[in-house]
Amino acid sequence: MTDIAMIEAAHARLEGHVRRTPLLSSPFLDEIAGRQLFVKPECLQHTGSFKFRGAWSAISALDPAVRARGVIAFSSGNHAQGVALAARMHGIPSVIIMPFDAPRMKIENTRAYGAEVVLYDRVKEDRDAIGAKLAQERGLTLIKPYDEPLVIAGQGTTGLEIAEQAAELGIERADVLVPTGGGGFVSGISLALEAKAPGFIVHPCEPEGFDDVTRSLASGKRERNVLQSGSLCDAIVTPQPGEITFPIMSRLCSTGLVVTDDEALHAVALAFARLKIVVEPGGAVALAAALFHGDGLGETVIAVCSGGNVDADIFRQALDRHPL
Amino acid sequence: MTDIAMIEAAHARLEGHVRRTPLLSSPFLDEIAGRQLFVKPECLQHTGSFKFRGAWSAISALDPAVRARGVIAFSSGNHAQGVALAARMHGIPSVIIMPFDAPRMKIENTRAYGAEVVLYDRVKEDRDAIGAKLAQERGLTLIKPYDEPLVIAGQGTTGLEIAEQAAELGIERADVLVPTGGGGFVSGISLALEAKAPGFIVHPCEPEGFDDVTRSLASGKRERNVLQSGSLCDAIVTPQPGEITFPIMSRLCSTGLVVTDDEALHAVALAFARLKIVVEPGGAVALAAALFHGDGLGETVIAVCSGGNVDADIFRQALDRHPL
Repeated sequence: MTDIAMIEAAHARLEGHVRRTPLLSSPFLDEIAGRQLFVKPECLQHTGSFKFRGAWSAISALDPAVRARGVIAFSSGNHAQGVALAARMHGIPSVIIMPFDAPRMKIENTRAYGAEVVLYDRVKEDRDAIGAKLAQERGLTLIKPYDEPLVIAGQGTTGLEIAEQAAELGIERADVLVPTGGGGFVSGISLALEAKAPGFIVHPCEPEGFDDVTRSLASGKRERNVLQSGSLCDAIVTPQPGEITFPIMSRLCSTGLVVTDDEALHAVALAFARLKIVVEPGGAVALAAALFHGDGLGETVIAVCSGGNVDADIFRQALDRHPL
Repeated sequence: MTDIAMIEAAHARLEGHVRRTPLLSSPFLDEIAGRQLFVKPECLQHTGSFKFRGAWSAISALDPAVRARGVIAFSSGNHAQGVALAARMHGIPSVIIMPFDAPRMKIENTRAYGAEVVLYDRVKEDRDAIGAKLAQERGLTLIKPYDEPLVIAGQGTTGLEIAEQAAELGIERADVLVPTGGGGFVSGISLALEAKAPGFIVHPCEPEGFDDVTRSLASGKRERNVLQSGSLCDAIVTPQPGEITFPIMSRLCSTGLVVTDDEALHAVALAFARLKIVVEPGGAVALAAALFHGDGLGETVIAVCSGGNVDADIFRQALDRHPL
């Protein structure tokens, strides 16, 4: 299981390869939020999302002989790009299994980062069978997106940075808001902060209609989403909390926060105008929660923006619907 | 005159108040540029541009009794916001003299950062007379945008960061490209790099039609621009190189690079898609030069993106004209 020692080991392996993203802020956003608000922009990470951290952590920990045969992943988005680039930087092959109707830009980027992309039909084909066959034939190692201790450890390095950067600013208490799908990111951050910033409270953040983690934390068992797609926040939509991540979240996370798609778009527009960063709607749900649902939060909030891989048309929509 | 000791002193005064912006990169941009390309995103600085550095440097160096009376600046844009916020963070009043037809967002932001904004008519009124009267009546200190050694020293702290960050990456030789108006930013960076990274070559970058620095470096004397406005890159349009900055640029800078407005917009669109940062056209001229005019440059280029204060309509135009 992932613990602080694993996260610190991942941090050491990531050193010199990962970007240390800054903490940003704006008096304009503080005013909207009604509190001191910091943003950790993981959209500025390699491949445009935090997923690069977990991918690097898992790949760099493999036995060299096993690693040399290559890795495989299932993903329609950010995890795909993270695994593809981390594999290329290790000089090994990667195969990414993606639904053929995934956003064009994400498929093209994954290819451009050096992966072999295998497309499948979500309705007619069994992606696990396709992946298992390829993995066996070629001796590839599966890199899971969140239910994998080494991946959680890699995502947790974001939490180490938050703890350090907050300490530099003299912050001893804060609510930390994290966009959450399967829960790998928020689990890693929670474990890091438990050890390094015990006064911090972590809230998973989700889009309305896909609030499986929030409901699961409330009920004490893993709840499923009714729908599997249909949110602008596609990057963080998963069927239910992970098997490995749910116990971590149950132990360490406070209540979940839920925002509408429109609030996520509003946060995208404000991040453009006030922070000069590009955030995808799913990556902006924690910022949206801080801005529009902060009532129960303390004086200082740190909102993580998890990714920035947004198509231009969605971005334009955010600017159109939410002019300054 | 500004020297490395002044820049290091400014660095010490800025410590804990300025953001250390990261170095970003993307394999997609490397491919377009045909070389290794790093971007220093000063659009992520407080107030969305490097101008905060120079403003803080100048204000923090004032005698406390003088400083307490307040500061005044002439600016239609980024310098205004930098001075306003740096003054507010010092707890002192600021007055900014702006043309009444400056971009609405820049006027509103300057007010929101706490400045008293005094608007004037560029055609009918004498802004220097307005400023001199106010300064005398209230005992305000003028903070010039570039022809001021303390401001140049503050901008030079960007160069110290570039030298450190490049050293961490093992880079010993690089072309450093800097968006240039009056020359304060490129002068400060050149002075810092002369001392800390002597293998680096600095190129001022400008928009077509407003290439006074490029022409002045070629002719050896201060040349003027024919037009005073009409570029999308309004943030970096000045009548001619500064009196103090020109000798520094002459001694330390290599040839200037000139890009079209459309190339600047293309760089804005690529920074959106590939780096997840928001850059204004004027702030993107160095990135545009690296991407589209890199023929004479070496294997490694560091392009500074100087600011991100762009209205949504101009940003949309960049995305519309340059889809991925």
